[in-house]
Amino acid sequence: MNGLHLKTFLTSNLDVDEEEIDSLVANCRVMQVNKETFLLQKGEHCRHTFFVEKGLLRQYSIDERGKEHILSFAPENWFVTDRESAYFNQPSAYYIQALEDSHVVLIDDDFIQRLSQKIPKFTEFNNRLLHNHIRQQQHRINLLLSAVAEDRYLQFVAMYPDILLRVPQAMIASYLGITPESLSRVRKELARKNSKR
Amino acid sequence: MNGLHLKTFLTSNLDVDEEEIDSLVANCRVMQVNKETFLLQKGEHCRHTFFVEKGLLRQYSIDERGKEHILSFAPENWFVTDRESAYFNQPSAYYIQALEDSHVVLIDDDFIQRLSQKIPKFTEFNNRLLHNHIRQQQHRINLLLSAVAEDRYLQFVAMYPDILLRVPQAMIASYLGITPESLSRVRKELARKNSKR
Repeated sequence: MNGLHLKTFLTSNLDVDEEEIDSLVANCRVMQVNKETFLLQKGEHCRHTFFVEKGLLRQYSIDERGKEHILSFAPENWFVTDRESAYFNQPSAYYIQALEDSHVVLIDDDFIQRLSQKIPKFTEFNNRLLHNHIRQQQHRINLLLSAVAEDRYLQFVAMYPDILLRVPQAMIASYLGITPESLSRVRKELARKNSKR
Repeated sequence: MNGLHLKTFLTSNLDVDEEEIDSLVANCRVMQVNKETFLLQKGEHCRHTFFVEKGLLRQYSIDERGKEHILSFAPENWFVTDRESAYFNQPSAYYIQALEDSHVVLIDDDFIQRLSQKIPKFTEFNNRLLHNHIRQQQHRINLLLSAVAEDRYLQFVAMYPDILLRVPQAMIASYLGITPESLSRVRKELARKNSKR
């Protein structure tokens, strides 16, 4: 369990010594998943939060017409889960799938409980993570309501700078809520602007 | 302070006696605001969560082209705030405005602190409210990415049944991320289907 990004993430955000974290993290399961493996499928109950050590996951839905819609990407050091299913104990409406061969830490309720008990500051930190989630979602909703394709794309680049070349263009378009043709136009236009500088 | 909906909301969700709640709620400020009054404007720091006793509020943004985009409506018994601004102490990107003459309870950090100290279950309950917020936003994002205008409208009707006739059609269209013409078409189509039944 040494050298886990999750350990670094926790020690750098919570004022605890490494040994304490070691003993907690030691109980977590780390899974190696191949590209295209599903960690969650629609209709299942989501029992974990997934922390990405290596690789890339996506959370998405499929509409009645069979079209995929990407809710989020999770590259290294990101968490992904369906909080609705996990917290409210409901069947999920979403899929979580590996887009690359990945290493994923499975975080369950038990781990969260132990963190809360052993590390008093954890509750506050978890609260911050929830607020951060709400902040990101609020941005996303506002962007989907108000922003033109170019602004949506630029925000995506700022948020996910390291996955631009790892994700098919069609998936980026799906995340942005625009057509692949529209994304292609935006990218050409931006390239043209940059070459003029 | 007797007869406040906020009091009923808290006593029915938390296992506490009325006197305890009374003494806490007694410190809250209740404001009467006229239609069109702003409770928050872009650039200001949001210091409160607003609980609507009577009336109707909206939270919205204005884009670079001057167009309004409605993030949420808050009728009676709803909360509205900009959590991003309040929690992360940042200038808000949003407006919160009364759409009707309203009575609003101003909830501040101090009130939340006192609730947490006096009512042990409150932390858990607040956590549930945060998860509920995340759930609603996740639905909204998925809807904006995937749903056709009619489905968006039907979800709106299910979520806000009592404000359909209180909000101008253009604002409903703005909330749904569709044009007023598209909303008008959907409503006509639904009326046609219903009249055939």
